Amino acid sequence: MKSPLLSIFFLLFVNSVLAQVSFSTDQIRVNEQRIEQRIQEFAKFGINEKGEPFRVAYSQGDIEGRAYFMDLMKKAGLEVHIDYAGNIIGKKAGKDPSKKPIAFGSHLDMVPKGGNYDGTFGSFTALEIIEVLNEHNIITNHPLEVLIFQNEEGGLVGSQAMTGNLKKEALSQKSASGLTIEEGIRAIGGNPERLDEVIRKKGDLAAFLEIHIEQSKVLESQGIDVAIIEGIVGIEDWDITVTGMANHAGSTPMNDRQDALIAASKLVLAVNEVVNSYDGAQVGSVGKISVPSGAPNIIPGKVEMSLQMRDISTEKIMKMYADIEKRAEEIAKETHTEIGFKNLNLGTTPTIASKEIQDKMIQAAESLDISYIKMQSGAGHDVQEMALLGPIGLVFIPSKDGISHNSSEYSSPSQMAKGADVMLRTVLLLDEG
Amino acid sequence: MKSPLLSIFFLLFVNSVLAQVSFSTDQIRVNEQRIEQRIQEFAKFGINEKGEPFRVAYSQGDIEGRAYFMDLMKKAGLEVHIDYAGNIIGKKAGKDPSKKPIAFGSHLDMVPKGGNYDGTFGSFTALEIIEVLNEHNIITNHPLEVLIFQNEEGGLVGSQAMTGNLKKEALSQKSASGLTIEEGIRAIGGNPERLDEVIRKKGDLAAFLEIHIEQSKVLESQGIDVAIIEGIVGIEDWDITVTGMANHAGSTPMNDRQDALIAASKLVLAVNEVVNSYDGAQVGSVGKISVPSGAPNIIPGKVEMSLQMRDISTEKIMKMYADIEKRAEEIAKETHTEIGFKNLNLGTTPTIASKEIQDKMIQAAESLDISYIKMQSGAGHDVQEMALLGPIGLVFIPSKDGISHNSSEYSSPSQMAKGADVMLRTVLLLDEG
Repeated sequence: MKSPLLSIFFLLFVNSVLAQVSFSTDQIRVNEQRIEQRIQEFAKFGINEKGEPFRVAYSQGDIEGRAYFMDLMKKAGLEVHIDYAGNIIGKKAGKDPSKKPIAFGSHLDMVPKGGNYDGTFGSFTALEIIEVLNEHNIITNHPLEVLIFQNEEGGLVGSQAMTGNLKKEALSQKSASGLTIEEGIRAIGGNPERLDEVIRKKGDLAAFLEIHIEQSKVLESQGIDVAIIEGIVGIEDWDITVTGMANHAGSTPMNDRQDALIAASKLVLAVNEVVNSYDGAQVGSVGKISVPSGAPNIIPGKVEMSLQMRDISTEKIMKMYADIEKRAEEIAKETHTEIGFKNLNLGTTPTIASKEIQDKMIQAAESLDISYIKMQSGAGHDVQEMALLGPIGLVFIPSKDGISHNSSEYSSPSQMAKGADVMLRTVLLLDEG
Repeated sequence: MKSPLLSIFFLLFVNSVLAQVSFSTDQIRVNEQRIEQRIQEFAKFGINEKGEPFRVAYSQGDIEGRAYFMDLMKKAGLEVHIDYAGNIIGKKAGKDPSKKPIAFGSHLDMVPKGGNYDGTFGSFTALEIIEVLNEHNIITNHPLEVLIFQNEEGGLVGSQAMTGNLKKEALSQKSASGLTIEEGIRAIGGNPERLDEVIRKKGDLAAFLEIHIEQSKVLESQGIDVAIIEGIVGIEDWDITVTGMANHAGSTPMNDRQDALIAASKLVLAVNEVVNSYDGAQVGSVGKISVPSGAPNIIPGKVEMSLQMRDISTEKIMKMYADIEKRAEEIAKETHTEIGFKNLNLGTTPTIASKEIQDKMIQAAESLDISYIKMQSGAGHDVQEMALLGPIGLVFIPSKDGISHNSSEYSSPSQMAKGADVMLRTVLLLDEG
């Protein structure tokens, strides 16, 4: 140091740099207005003659919306490409190229008659993280990747392609757009013949994070800002057939009936009782029931119904199923009917969120004074597939009245910003850690 | 008297005549073999390529069967004609032409895939009564009429034509044969333009009697020969709509559901409980249930179901309905759903069998040592329409396993003969006075 004055300037400079670094990781926030404005802008794509958004995967609205999104990604300095499966990938280099990427994202496609937040919010949050890091000149240690999966609503098509789980047969299936998956992949710039090349391996990602609107109203009704997801439930489906004896509803006395619907009704209530008898967030539902060739004047001889159970533990699902089967045996005996169960083997195994990421999310929420609860996700998300490539984390924000898959779905700008802030902070904490 | 010998001869002659009269009314029996043989003969008409009988109204099998039956009627000395509605009418004069006819009969048509006893047995019993009276040279005081109604299974078409209850709109409806009712009436020798001329007035018949196979297994299981019917139940039909809230079956917690199927299941059981809580032979059935656009992964938001109740007292039906409505209110409250009932106004009022005819039937059964019980008819029959023209009576005989409307329906020759004997004796008792 040549002079005390220079020394003082130098110290001031160092302090200012340190202050800036400290500001970067503790004080930076997402831009609430920008997220809201972009959600609103995006909502204009694919408006049909009824004034409703129609951006199902591979539709014109989807294609135009994707182009708008990619344009914003490029403006945010991301290195953008569409992979052969049609997924949009945006990369931002980190300080240490040897580190595995921290990835985050969601999807832009919607269900028919869907709304403007499911998937869209998670996608814009991913972009917002990049924007805020840019604004604060933050280069993370890890490379970052924004992953926007195509056709999530059609069965996690894009993310399954990335894990190698997309079955050949799926390609010929018709999507909600009218195109087959194969035609759809071509329509959005992919190449269905080169799907093998998009498959990633276990361990390829340092982390994958997603944020989504809650598809129920737990957060809203409890007045909580975010849910930190412990895992995505596994699902088991059964077809149930109750067989009694069809008979004349006029001439068959009440005490001489083998009414399959009496038995089925008892079973519907038994399912509910069994599922409610366990502690936890498990669910069980009979969503379909019918009396084939039923008529008001015929005692039901046969009832067909569905049973679906979801929980984060397959073991618990199977324990509940055993209870239900036992109850069904009693009901069959009592009603002189037969009750048969057939597992449809559609079962998805539960996905467990990384404990470390959950802890970082909690740390993020607490440091931001954002209220949180832990929750299971009862619905499936792309994050499930990503769990095959690396540790995952998932955050929910409140959705008005718990509505999703409907044009009336809504989350307020501040609700979105709080969730996005937790995501941003989690990315930084993971990058530091 | 010229000589004691002649006097003796005269007394012997008088005795023998008296003995014969006494024999005529107490000892005569139907011919079991003839009934069985004719049922078997009739079963051969309308056999289709699968070897099953097909004699639905207006079909070729029906037309051929009717011709065979009319031929037998003529051979039995009846004055036979087809009325403009297509009903077969056979008349036998009585001693006193001023008396109103005692009528009896049933129908020859069947349901698709039906059997050889429903309707057929009652028709051949009517013919058998004439045959036996002829064999014993009995001329009744009343004129007798054998009435064979066309298309009973299609909705009492022939008997409704005779009471004026057949609606104009019914003529254009397609019958099971493929022909409209109007075309069908022409095909069997009627004239749909002159239906007005077949209408009879209240009081035109001294009595109408019908015998039918029981469409349940009460008689068979109790080992009873015949049922003497107190009346035919009235029927009331409702559509029930249960409205809850459709929601994601994965993300909606068990305690935050408005599951319309839970409510509907409770209601199905409540209907059963309410109907069973009354003394008597009333029945109540939910024959149809569905979850419109239901899916295994959607909590049922709406359930549609039917409710049908039958009893010989409309007042009792309405009392049960009030109980069910009350239970529905409680269920709706408890399950956070709405339950709406809509009476379909299809209701048929109960038909009460003549007390006098029931008493004669009991007298007949007792004198013949034939076991009987009283019963309600839960199913409709032509006798209901005839109740608008005069007092009616109805007898059931056992049907194997309670089966009807099925090719496996069966009653044994001795079961049929016992029922026909009760009918024959009842005709004679009514005729005596």
